[in-house]
Amino acid sequence: MTFRAVKPIDGAPYGVEIPEHSKSEVDLLIKKATASSHSIATQSPKKRALLLRTIAAEIEASRASLIELACAETALPEARIAGEITRTTVQFELFARLVETGKHLAVAIDKADPNYSPAPRPDIRKMNHPLGVVAIFAASNFPLAFSVAGGDAASAIAAGNAIVAKAHPSHPNTCATIESAIKSALKKCGLSEDLYSIVQGINPEITHWLALHDEVKAVGFTGSEIVGRILVNLAATRKEPIPVFAEMGSLNPVFVTKNAIADRSEVLAKGIIDSALMGSGQFCTKPGLVFTPNDTDFIETMKSHLATLSVAPLLSKSIAERYSSAIAKLSSAGKIEVASGATNEAGFGVTPTIFITDWATAAANHELLEEHFGPTTVVITCDENQYVEIASSLQGQLTATIQGTDDDKPAELLSILKEKAGRVIWNGFPTGVAVTSAMNHGGPWPSSSSHTTSVGTDAIYRFMRPVAYQGFAQNVLPEPLQDANSWAVPQSIN
Amino acid sequence: MTFRAVKPIDGAPYGVEIPEHSKSEVDLLIKKATASSHSIATQSPKKRALLLRTIAAEIEASRASLIELACAETALPEARIAGEITRTTVQFELFARLVETGKHLAVAIDKADPNYSPAPRPDIRKMNHPLGVVAIFAASNFPLAFSVAGGDAASAIAAGNAIVAKAHPSHPNTCATIESAIKSALKKCGLSEDLYSIVQGINPEITHWLALHDEVKAVGFTGSEIVGRILVNLAATRKEPIPVFAEMGSLNPVFVTKNAIADRSEVLAKGIIDSALMGSGQFCTKPGLVFTPNDTDFIETMKSHLATLSVAPLLSKSIAERYSSAIAKLSSAGKIEVASGATNEAGFGVTPTIFITDWATAAANHELLEEHFGPTTVVITCDENQYVEIASSLQGQLTATIQGTDDDKPAELLSILKEKAGRVIWNGFPTGVAVTSAMNHGGPWPSSSSHTTSVGTDAIYRFMRPVAYQGFAQNVLPEPLQDANSWAVPQSIN
Repeated sequence: MTFRAVKPIDGAPYGVEIPEHSKSEVDLLIKKATASSHSIATQSPKKRALLLRTIAAEIEASRASLIELACAETALPEARIAGEITRTTVQFELFARLVETGKHLAVAIDKADPNYSPAPRPDIRKMNHPLGVVAIFAASNFPLAFSVAGGDAASAIAAGNAIVAKAHPSHPNTCATIESAIKSALKKCGLSEDLYSIVQGINPEITHWLALHDEVKAVGFTGSEIVGRILVNLAATRKEPIPVFAEMGSLNPVFVTKNAIADRSEVLAKGIIDSALMGSGQFCTKPGLVFTPNDTDFIETMKSHLATLSVAPLLSKSIAERYSSAIAKLSSAGKIEVASGATNEAGFGVTPTIFITDWATAAANHELLEEHFGPTTVVITCDENQYVEIASSLQGQLTATIQGTDDDKPAELLSILKEKAGRVIWNGFPTGVAVTSAMNHGGPWPSSSSHTTSVGTDAIYRFMRPVAYQGFAQNVLPEPLQDANSWAVPQSIN
Repeated sequence: MTFRAVKPIDGAPYGVEIPEHSKSEVDLLIKKATASSHSIATQSPKKRALLLRTIAAEIEASRASLIELACAETALPEARIAGEITRTTVQFELFARLVETGKHLAVAIDKADPNYSPAPRPDIRKMNHPLGVVAIFAASNFPLAFSVAGGDAASAIAAGNAIVAKAHPSHPNTCATIESAIKSALKKCGLSEDLYSIVQGINPEITHWLALHDEVKAVGFTGSEIVGRILVNLAATRKEPIPVFAEMGSLNPVFVTKNAIADRSEVLAKGIIDSALMGSGQFCTKPGLVFTPNDTDFIETMKSHLATLSVAPLLSKSIAERYSSAIAKLSSAGKIEVASGATNEAGFGVTPTIFITDWATAAANHELLEEHFGPTTVVITCDENQYVEIASSLQGQLTATIQGTDDDKPAELLSILKEKAGRVIWNGFPTGVAVTSAMNHGGPWPSSSSHTTSVGTDAIYRFMRPVAYQGFAQNVLPEPLQDANSWAVPQSIN
């Protein structure tokens, strides 16, 4: 069985015939990854950092080819792909800077204390260890930044795990080039190429083979709530359940105050539309719900700005079809105003479309309050004093935004939104997720399956587990736990 | 519907008639806890620490009554119960010391940086927030230390959550006294008593009512793998799945080297038996598998020491019946030598029993390699050079122990055991879990459902989730994220 990539720009097949991985091939890759996992797990922080930097360099060395492949496979503009490549390499560099400090090992040393209460305490020393083999599932919408060398893979490698990554069938050649770059980096660092492999295929069974394999110790996933739920359920049915770190759906509500409209109506209206259409609306942080006072000028500006815009074709035929079908369905519902941008008729092109309705209508039509992947958003007019109640009714979100001015007192609304979202934003747009230590990209279900972040340096902690060593002699302890501390890692000594 | 406690010492009913909580009562307690959860969540570190210390003081003030009730309800000796009370109060004090530093908030501040790569970075500040209402399930075997005010509850309160705790029906009066103490502490600290409630009952549906309630945001559980698995599965079926932090079964294997026997045969043999029989063998860290060279004197010492010992009655009729049935079944299997201690015929009394066999027999009889709650262990003779292979075949464990001497080279065995266990021990006994920052009480499934610890100060991180604040003005940010830092918490500024 083979398959080929498809160009969104014209729907034509692209690139080589790619063989589907069979179950026995997937099993073999996991087995090989397991067999070599010890070698990466026991690297010193310096060697790990060098590996991460070498991966960044090898990806950088493949830039021209990655741009060519990813642009063809996703129809995203070259500047966007170039930015994603830089984001990917910067991410590896950030993890290199973290791991070379050894801070991620979270070393805690409690020396023996015969007077400890309620009982004498032996010498106990704890550190984080990697998990072994981690299965990563690439997202379609970021062919680099959330794909087989995205935040999940980078953090899992930084933690010292071996990786088997499911390539996304909408950009398989991009993924294969990344695999070559990482294998080359492993080789240059004297490590086995088996530590990182991708599996290719359109057969949904591959997901099961990976998530149910005994030697897979955790899953990193970015995609839909439906598939995230499948993975969470599969993991729970295993003889040995494993954690599934799934980043899934989010509506990323934006709450606009009267003051904000009075202050900057035009900039705000255009900014919201631009954010909703960014990447053809295929961002997990797309503002999918906009709550606003019923201000005619503000809404007219959104509509007239939208009317001037078209977007690049969607990433795949199935995404374009799901989008068009959702738009048709919502357009035919009652009491909803529909506004459109320019249609892109090439390939998987679609028409950006926004819906405008009031809260009573939206609250009664659950499809308006669901995520629709693609260049659309739902503008809901309501009274500003309903925001707290509306916010309380929402599901978990990656982000929640307030657009206001210094005259607003957002404390109460904020106190609700922080319960609903992993990141709350003031006077910004949710699209754009900085890779930095204070970032949190996650949130209550369905935005995420766990209380962790999939972006930023803290993502590394998903793929490690603590082990306590009690009573061992210095020469038997791992280096970070020894008094001599030859790796010079931070030791919290008690 | 009511029920009464039962005294293990004679099987007689004990204490008052306790009303079973109905579903509507459970729902109401959760609703009330939710309604007041904001008040504890927003406490300053100083006020939270004061609350934790007041809880410790109120529990201490109930010491006499707790000893009377818990001794009667569990048949554990007074010294053990007294130690558990101290452990419980010390635990609250340790969490008080942690939270007053503010370290648990994990504040990270990334100031705006227009030159950040790959894109300008807005001001982003992250901290941990409590989850809301946490459901705690008490264990039977530690009526204080792992019950309704044990490590799960203490860490969840320290994190700032409201608690609804399922009392264990084998010590319901002890639990009710703890509830009074904590409600009294809440009142003294000016907080609502609704922030902590217990629910009573023998109806297994209560577990479902708690684990499936929309407002319950996490579960802490200590008990069997069977019930842990039920909770994990329930959580996965929720519309909004929640984390289940379950500490479950463990065999706590001990690997004895020839050198250790040559060095200290008698002390070691007696020590292993004493550890296995501690608390009538009802510890989650009981050494349930002992691997040893076939040394006649060593094994005879274990048997002769055991012959002199009896244990207190088991905690409940069902535990005693399960124990006796498992012992009878294993005793009738072939190729297994059985050695016994003295029978305690009072109430739920049983006969401590150990089984001695070789690895070939054990490997072929999976019941020998399962946890049997109560005063028993399985001694498996084998060649020391089989230890690595045997260790590789084991499931996840809370602990794994090597008993050796300085002449042993345990590196290879240790490298396997650290993959299998949350805590590895050299020349100690697994029973006895220090409440300290470097402790890890958890391990791969089935010992734990997550990569976290349920004992020690790091247990707090199970019951918090990060929230990132982007672009907010100083006066809107929570205190720990403000530049002024009036709570004086550690801020990691980037």
